[in-house]
Amino acid sequence: MDYRIEKDTMGEIKVPADKIWGAQTQRSKENFQIGTEQMPIELIQAMAILKKSAAIANSKLGKLSAIKTNAIVQAADEILNGQWDDQFPLVVWQTGSGTQSNMNVNEVIAHRANQILQNAGEADRIHPNDDVNKSQSSNDTFPTALHIAAVLKVEDYLLPRLRFLKATLDDKAEKFKDIIKIGRTHLQDATPLTLGQEISGWAAMLAKSEHMIIQNIEYMKELAIGGTAVGTGINAHPEFGERVAAEISELTGKHFTSAANKFHALTSHDEAVVAHGALKALAADLMKIANDVRWLASGPRSGIGEITIPENEPGSSIMPGKVNPTQSEAMTMVVTQVVGNDATIAFAASQGNFELNVFKPVIIYNFLQSTRLLADTMKSFNDHCAEGIEPNKEVLDHNLQNSLMLVTALNPYIGYENAAKIAKKAHKEGTTLKEAAIATGLLTEEQFDEYVDPATMIYPNVK
Amino acid sequence: MDYRIEKDTMGEIKVPADKIWGAQTQRSKENFQIGTEQMPIELIQAMAILKKSAAIANSKLGKLSAIKTNAIVQAADEILNGQWDDQFPLVVWQTGSGTQSNMNVNEVIAHRANQILQNAGEADRIHPNDDVNKSQSSNDTFPTALHIAAVLKVEDYLLPRLRFLKATLDDKAEKFKDIIKIGRTHLQDATPLTLGQEISGWAAMLAKSEHMIIQNIEYMKELAIGGTAVGTGINAHPEFGERVAAEISELTGKHFTSAANKFHALTSHDEAVVAHGALKALAADLMKIANDVRWLASGPRSGIGEITIPENEPGSSIMPGKVNPTQSEAMTMVVTQVVGNDATIAFAASQGNFELNVFKPVIIYNFLQSTRLLADTMKSFNDHCAEGIEPNKEVLDHNLQNSLMLVTALNPYIGYENAAKIAKKAHKEGTTLKEAAIATGLLTEEQFDEYVDPATMIYPNVK
Amino acid sequence: MDYRIEKDTMGEIKVPADKIWGAQTQRSKENFQIGTEQMPIELIQAMAILKKSAAIANSKLGKLSAIKTNAIVQAADEILNGQWDDQFPLVVWQTGSGTQSNMNVNEVIAHRANQILQNAGEADRIHPNDDVNKSQSSNDTFPTALHIAAVLKVEDYLLPRLRFLKATLDDKAEKFKDIIKIGRTHLQDATPLTLGQEISGWAAMLAKSEHMIIQNIEYMKELAIGGTAVGTGINAHPEFGERVAAEISELTGKHFTSAANKFHALTSHDEAVVAHGALKALAADLMKIANDVRWLASGPRSGIGEITIPENEPGSSIMPGKVNPTQSEAMTMVVTQVVGNDATIAFAASQGNFELNVFKPVIIYNFLQSTRLLADTMKSFNDHCAEGIEPNKEVLDHNLQNSLMLVTALNPYIGYENAAKIAKKAHKEGTTLKEAAIATGLLTEEQFDEYVDPATMIYPNVK
Amino acid sequence: MDYRIEKDTMGEIKVPADKIWGAQTQRSKENFQIGTEQMPIELIQAMAILKKSAAIANSKLGKLSAIKTNAIVQAADEILNGQWDDQFPLVVWQTGSGTQSNMNVNEVIAHRANQILQNAGEADRIHPNDDVNKSQSSNDTFPTALHIAAVLKVEDYLLPRLRFLKATLDDKAEKFKDIIKIGRTHLQDATPLTLGQEISGWAAMLAKSEHMIIQNIEYMKELAIGGTAVGTGINAHPEFGERVAAEISELTGKHFTSAANKFHALTSHDEAVVAHGALKALAADLMKIANDVRWLASGPRSGIGEITIPENEPGSSIMPGKVNPTQSEAMTMVVTQVVGNDATIAFAASQGNFELNVFKPVIIYNFLQSTRLLADTMKSFNDHCAEGIEPNKEVLDHNLQNSLMLVTALNPYIGYENAAKIAKKAHKEGTTLKEAAIATGLLTEEQFDEYVDPATMIYPNVK
Repeated sequence: MDYRIEKDTMGEIKVPADKIWGAQTQRSKENFQIGTEQMPIELIQAMAILKKSAAIANSKLGKLSAIKTNAIVQAADEILNGQWDDQFPLVVWQTGSGTQSNMNVNEVIAHRANQILQNAGEADRIHPNDDVNKSQSSNDTFPTALHIAAVLKVEDYLLPRLRFLKATLDDKAEKFKDIIKIGRTHLQDATPLTLGQEISGWAAMLAKSEHMIIQNIEYMKELAIGGTAVGTGINAHPEFGERVAAEISELTGKHFTSAANKFHALTSHDEAVVAHGALKALAADLMKIANDVRWLASGPRSGIGEITIPENEPGSSIMPGKVNPTQSEAMTMVVTQVVGNDATIAFAASQGNFELNVFKPVIIYNFLQSTRLLADTMKSFNDHCAEGIEPNKEVLDHNLQNSLMLVTALNPYIGYENAAKIAKKAHKEGTTLKEAAIATGLLTEEQFDEYVDPATMIYPNVK
Repeated sequence: MDYRIEKDTMGEIKVPADKIWGAQTQRSKENFQIGTEQMPIELIQAMAILKKSAAIANSKLGKLSAIKTNAIVQAADEILNGQWDDQFPLVVWQTGSGTQSNMNVNEVIAHRANQILQNAGEADRIHPNDDVNKSQSSNDTFPTALHIAAVLKVEDYLLPRLRFLKATLDDKAEKFKDIIKIGRTHLQDATPLTLGQEISGWAAMLAKSEHMIIQNIEYMKELAIGGTAVGTGINAHPEFGERVAAEISELTGKHFTSAANKFHALTSHDEAVVAHGALKALAADLMKIANDVRWLASGPRSGIGEITIPENEPGSSIMPGKVNPTQSEAMTMVVTQVVGNDATIAFAASQGNFELNVFKPVIIYNFLQSTRLLADTMKSFNDHCAEGIEPNKEVLDHNLQNSLMLVTALNPYIGYENAAKIAKKAHKEGTTLKEAAIATGLLTEEQFDEYVDPATMIYPNVK
Repeated sequence: MDYRIEKDTMGEIKVPADKIWGAQTQRSKENFQIGTEQMPIELIQAMAILKKSAAIANSKLGKLSAIKTNAIVQAADEILNGQWDDQFPLVVWQTGSGTQSNMNVNEVIAHRANQILQNAGEADRIHPNDDVNKSQSSNDTFPTALHIAAVLKVEDYLLPRLRFLKATLDDKAEKFKDIIKIGRTHLQDATPLTLGQEISGWAAMLAKSEHMIIQNIEYMKELAIGGTAVGTGINAHPEFGERVAAEISELTGKHFTSAANKFHALTSHDEAVVAHGALKALAADLMKIANDVRWLASGPRSGIGEITIPENEPGSSIMPGKVNPTQSEAMTMVVTQVVGNDATIAFAASQGNFELNVFKPVIIYNFLQSTRLLADTMKSFNDHCAEGIEPNKEVLDHNLQNSLMLVTALNPYIGYENAAKIAKKAHKEGTTLKEAAIATGLLTEEQFDEYVDPATMIYPNVK
Repeated sequence: MDYRIEKDTMGEIKVPADKIWGAQTQRSKENFQIGTEQMPIELIQAMAILKKSAAIANSKLGKLSAIKTNAIVQAADEILNGQWDDQFPLVVWQTGSGTQSNMNVNEVIAHRANQILQNAGEADRIHPNDDVNKSQSSNDTFPTALHIAAVLKVEDYLLPRLRFLKATLDDKAEKFKDIIKIGRTHLQDATPLTLGQEISGWAAMLAKSEHMIIQNIEYMKELAIGGTAVGTGINAHPEFGERVAAEISELTGKHFTSAANKFHALTSHDEAVVAHGALKALAADLMKIANDVRWLASGPRSGIGEITIPENEPGSSIMPGKVNPTQSEAMTMVVTQVVGNDATIAFAASQGNFELNVFKPVIIYNFLQSTRLLADTMKSFNDHCAEGIEPNKEVLDHNLQNSLMLVTALNPYIGYENAAKIAKKAHKEGTTLKEAAIATGLLTEEQFDEYVDPATMIYPNVK
C-alpha cells in the first residue's frame, strides 16, 4: 500500500497515501481498534462548523491572516458538503476528551487548506494546532461540537418528524371524534370515551414531549468555546468565545452563546443529561402509543381488534397470512435502546474529575443514536402505520354496548354501592346492565335509558 | 385484639378498633404484604390537600353541603397537621392506580369527619366514595397528588438545601479566588487556574441544575384532577378540575393548573420522567463535586492533599487516626441510588395501557426518595464538609511551581511543537521547565520569566 | 433527655441513656441525617453472626479469653434473637465502607458484653475495637456481612417463595393440560397450544430463574474476612479467615469459604452484580408472567377474558363493580424497582479505588430490597392470584374455533403460499377457514377436516 | 437502476438486480428506514450455521432431498465464508421477532442454492419458506441464532482477550511482588501492601469475571429450535430440535442442546439477561482497574505517580508534551456503554407477551456490542497500556516511608486508642510516625523499629 510519512511531537508515522489526515489521526486509528462505532458524522460536521467559525473569529480579532482564514473556511465548507466523509475514521472509543477527533478535523482541514494554498509560501503554511486549533483546545472544542451536533439533530431532524406524527394523530383524533368506544383501565372495561379522545391523548403526549424537548435542548446552546485547556481561556482572546458563538449562530441560524462558567462547561454534562431525559420521556410516551396501537389492533379474531392497521409485509415465516404490528415493534425496541442510552449518558456525565470530564465521545454517540432512532421510528411508524389506522366500527360498537362500566353513570343517582350491586349482578348472571338494573328495582327502564347514555358519559356531565 | 366490622361492596371485614380506616384499607393491608415501603407520607399529605380542595370546590359548585364540607376540611387539616400519620399503613406495592391509598384517605377522612359530625343526622353522614371522593376517581386524584407531592418536595425541601450548598461554594470560590493552583485534565497536570475558579465550577453546576430543576418541575404543576375515571370527566362538573386546581394553588402558594388533556394526564408520566431527569443531572454533578473534594483532600501524606476537610469521626476500625471523606461517600452513594431510581421511573412511565398507567405508586416512591436523599445529602455535605474546606497552601504552591504544563503559555511565542520539546525534555530529565527551556536555546531566561507567569495564565490572556 | 458520656479517639459525646451504642454510632447518627433508610436488619444480623464467629475463632487461636468470648457470643446471640433491634439506628447513607455500622455492632456487643460481665475485673473489660473487632477491619467485615446477608435472604427467604409459586403454576399446567386454546405471537392470533403448555412456560421461567439464582448466589459464599484493612490480613492470624468462614458455615448451615484473593474481596463486588443480575432475570420473567395473567384475564366483556382471577377488593373508587388485576400490578411495579436497583448496584460496584470500594451500604440496601420485594410479591401473587386462576372455557373454545392460524397445519400439504391465500381469503371475507379453503378448490372438506385438527397441532406433528 | 421482480404472498416488488435477496427482505428494507444499525453479521452467520444444520437434520429425517440439502449447505457455507456479507441489509429496528432477517437468510440461501442448482428441474427448485425454513419458524430460529451468536462471540472472541489481559496482569503481579507500597482506602493512606498484591487484585477480578461468564454463558447453549411457531413444534418432527442442536454442536464444537421447554425458549430471555449480567460485572471490574491505573499514573508532577504507562500519542491539542491515560479512558467509556446496554436488554427481555417476546433484535444487538467492545478494549488496553506498566520506585518508596498508617502495626501492642494518638500527633505536627511514637513515651525507638516494619505488614502477621 502506498503511504506517506507524517509527523507530530512523538515522531514519524506512515499514513495511507490516499488519506489526508495526519499523524495523530493515524496513531489513534492504530491504537484504538475497538468496536465499529465511528465518531458520528454529525459530530464531525459540528466540528467543521466550529473550525470555520473559529477561523473567522480569529481573523476578525487579527490573529489569523486572510489567506489562511479563507483556506480554512473553504476546507471546512467542503467537509460540511460531505466531500471528505471518508477522512474521519476514528472510533468513539478513543481518548475521552475527543482530542483525537479534534485533531483529525484539524489535520484534515490543515492538509486540505494547504492543498488549496499549494502555491503559497512557507509563511502561509497551515498548521493543525497553531492555525486550525488556534485559541482552542480539545477540551473546549469537543464539548462545543457536542452541543452543536445535539442541538442541530434534535431541532432539525427529530422535532420535524415528531411534529409529523403528531399531526397525523391530531387528524385521526379529529376524524374519529364521534366514535364512542369503551374505555379501559387496568386492562379492564371502564367508562366510555371516543376513539378521537383516546388518540388525542397520544397526540397530547407528543405535544408535551415536544414542548419539553424544545425547552431542554435550549440548555445545550451554551458553548464551552473560549475555555481552552482548563476553562480559564488561556491562549485565547477574551472575546474569542463570544465571537465564535456569534459566528456559529450566524451559520446555523440558532442562538448559541458562550457559557457563563467555562469550568462547568468542560466538566459537567448536566445539560446533555437533562436534554436526553426529555428524549427518554418521549420514548416512554412512544412505548405507550405503540403498545396501545398493537393491542387495539390485536386479533384479527381473538384479540381486541378495535382498530385496523396497514399490512406492510408477510408477518410469519410459518403461519401464512399473518399480519403483525411490526412498526410498533420497531418503535418499542427503539424505546428500550433509548432507555439504555440514557443510563449510559448519566453514568458518563457523572465521572468528571477536576477540570475535565473524559467521557465525551460516549455521551454524544448515545445522544445522537437516540435522536436519530426516535426520529426515524416516528417517521416510519407514521408512514407505515399511523396514517393507516382505521376504526373497526362493528367491534367498537359491540364492546361499547356490552360494557358493564356504563353503570358508573348511575353513581350520582343511586350511589356507588347500589351501582356496584347492579354491575356485579349483571356480571354474575351474564346479562346486560339494563336487565340487571331493572331486576334490582332500583331504577325503571325509562330511568336507566335516560341516565345511562354513553353519549353523555364522554365529558364532564354534571351540571 | 379488639376490632370492629367495616364493610364495602365486597362484604364485611374486621378492622382494628383503634384504627379509623375502613374496609378497603384493611383489605389492601391484608392482600399486599409486600416489603416495608409505606406509601410516602408526602403523598398522603398531598392527597389531604387535594381532598380538602375538592370538598371546597364541590361546595362552591353546590354539590356538597356546608356541614359536610366543613367536616371534610377539618379532617383533612388534621391529616396535614400530622395528627393521623399512623392511619396510612398501606405499602407502595399495591394496585398500580393507587386506588387503595386514595380509598385509605377517603376512609380516614370520612371516618374522622363522621366523628366530628357525631351528632349530625343520617343525611349528613359522610361516605368515603360519594362525599370525600365526590367528582373524583383514583385515576385522577392519585396522579394529582403525585404531582403536588413532587412539586412541594422539590421546591420547598430540595431547592433550599441546594441553594444552601451553592451559597457555601460561592463563598469558598470568592474566598479562594487568588489562590493559584495547578489544573488537571485526564488526571494529568494541566495549565493553572485558581482554587476559586475550580470551586466556581462546582457552584455553577449547582446553579445550572437548580435552574433546570426549576423549569422542569414546572411541568408537574399541571394536574389530572377533573379527568375522573378515564379522562373524560364523567360524573364531574365541567369546572371542577380548574376550581380544584385553584384551591390547591391557594393552599400551597404555587401555581397549579388543570391539565389541558386529561387522557394524557392519566396515562403519561412524561413530566415526572423529565423532572426526575433534572434531579439525575444534579446527581451527576454532585458525583463530580464529591469526587473532586475527596481526591483533592486525599492523603494526608501520599495523595493530592491540596485541600483539607473536617474530621467528623474516626475513620477506621483498625487503622488508628484515619480520617475519611465520609460525607463525599454518603453523597456518591446517594447518586447511585438516584440513577437507579431514574431507571425505575422511566420504565414504569413507559408501561401505560389505554386509559391508565398503573405504575403510579412506584413512580412517586422513587421520585420522593431521590428528592429527599439529594436534599439531605447536600445539607449534610454542606454542614459537615463543604463549610470546612480549607486550602493546603503549601501543597498547592509546590504543585504549581513544579508543573510542566506551564509550558502551554509558550505556544503563542514558539509554537506548539517547540513547546512540546521543552516539556518533554524537562519531564525526561527531571528538571524544571525553565531549565529545560533555556537549555534548548529557544528562549532566554528573561523571556521565559516574562512569558511563563501562572498569574497571567488563569484568564483569556491574548490581546 | 437523659444521656451518658461516651468517648472514642475523637473525644467525648453524649449518648441517650437508654441506648447501649457508643460514641462512633452516636457521631454517625448526628453527622448523617440523610433519608430514612436504616441499614437493613439483615445486614446487622449477618454482622452479629460474623462477630460471634470471629470471637470463637479468635478464642480457638488463643487470642481471646474464654470469658470475653462467651460474653461476646451471648451478646451476638441476643442480637440474633432480635432483642436489640432498636440499637442500630444508622442509615444507609454513611461512610461507604460501612465502618460506622461495623462500629455500631462492635459497640453494642461490647456494651452488652460488659453488662453481662459486670462483675468482671478491668482486664476482662471488652473493647469494641480491640476485642469485638479483633483481627478484623470494617473493610473485611462489612463485605463479609454483605455476602452473608445476601446469601441467607436469597436462599432462605426468596427461593422458598419462588418454589411456592412455581409449584402452583406446575399444578395449573398439569390441571389445564388438555384445554386447547389459541396461541398468540405479536399479539396476533397464532397456532394453538394448550393452556397447560402456556402456563408451563411460566413455570419453566421460574425453574430457570431458580436454577440461575442458585448458581449465581454461590459466588457470594466467598468471604472477605481475613483481609483486614487492605486485603493483606495485617493484624490477623493466617488461619483467621478460614476459621471464621468455617464457624459461619457451622452457624448458618451453608458452605462459606474464605476468598482466595482478599484484594479482590475488598474492592470488587462483581459477585453481587452477577447475583443481582440473576434476580433481575427473575424480575424480567415475572413481568412477563404478570402481564400474561392480566391480559388473559382482561375484560370482563371487552378484553381477552380467557381466564378468571380472584376478586380481592373493590377495584375502583368511581366505577362500581370493577375488579382489577392488582396482584399483577404490584408485581410489575416490583419489577421496575428491581431493574432500577440493578442499575444502582452495578454503578456502585464499578466505583472502587485502590484497596477499597466505598459503596458497600448502597449495594446491600438495594440487593436486600430486591430480594425481599421479589419474594414477597411472588408469595402475594401466589396466594391472592395464581392459585385462583381458572379457565374461561367458553371464551377459550370460541377463540380457538374462530382462528385463522389453524391454516398453518396446511403448509406441509399445500405449501406456505397456498395456505396464505386461504387465510387471507377467510380474513377478507369474514368466513371460517374451512369455507375459504373449500372455496379455493385446493382441498376438499374431508381433507380440511383431516389436516386441520387443533388437537394434532399442539406438538411436533410431523412423522 | 436495474432490478428484477420478486414476489411473496403480498404481491410483487422490485429488487435491485445485483442483489440476491427476495421480496420480504426488500419490503423490510423499504418499510424500516430506521437508524444505521444493521443486524449484526454475527447473527447472520449464526443463522447460516442454523440453516445448514436444519437442512442436514431434515435430510436425515427424510424430509429434504439430497440435492436440495447439498445446495442449501453450500449456500450456507458461502455465507459463513463471508462471501455474501453485502446481502443482509436489514436494520435491527424491524419486526421484533427477527422474522425479516430470518427471511433474508432464507431468501439469500434459496436464491443462491437455485443458482447452484441452475440446471435442476422444477421439482428441485428451492423455496425460502418450504425448504430453507422447513420445520422452522422465525420464532424458534431467531432466538436459536441469538444464542449461537452470543455463545460464539463470548467464548471465542471475548474470553481469549480477557485471558490475554489477565495473563499480563498475572505477570506484572509476579514481577512486582516485592515492591512494597502504601495502601489506600477511602483515597486515604492505609496500611502497606505490595504492588504485586495490588495488581493481583485486578487479575483476580478478571479471573472471577471469567469464571462467572463461563458459567453464565452456558445457559445460552439451550436452543429454541424445534419449537416452531408458538413452542409446540407444529410442522416439525419430534426429533428435529435435538437433531439440529446436535448438528450445530458438531459444526461449532460447542455443546448446544434443545431447550427443555420451548414455550420458555420463545418468550423468555432470562438467559441473555443473566449472561449479560456477567458481562456487566466484568465491566464494573474493568472500570475499577482502568481507574486505578490512571490514578496511579497520574501526574507526572502533581499526581500520585506511582506507576508509569506508555506514551502512545500526543495528549493535548493545546498543552504540549502532555501524556494522557487514553486507554483507560476508552475502557471506561466502554464500561458506561455496557451498563446502558444491560438496561436495554433487561427492559427488552421483560416485555414478552403470550407465546413470543418481540424484542429479540435489540437484545442481540446490544449483547454483541457489549461483547465486542469489552473484548476489543481489553485487547487494546493490554497492548497499549497494561504491558507497559512500570513502577516508579522512587515515588513508591517515598510514599511508603512517609505513611502514618504504619501505625496500625502497633494495635496489638498498645491498643487501638493509643495507636490513634500517635498517628494524630504525627499528622498534626508534621513529624514521622516514629518521632511521634517516641515522643508519647508509649514505645522506645527499638520497639517501634521492631513492630513497625512494612515488610511484615503485608500478610497475616499474627502468630
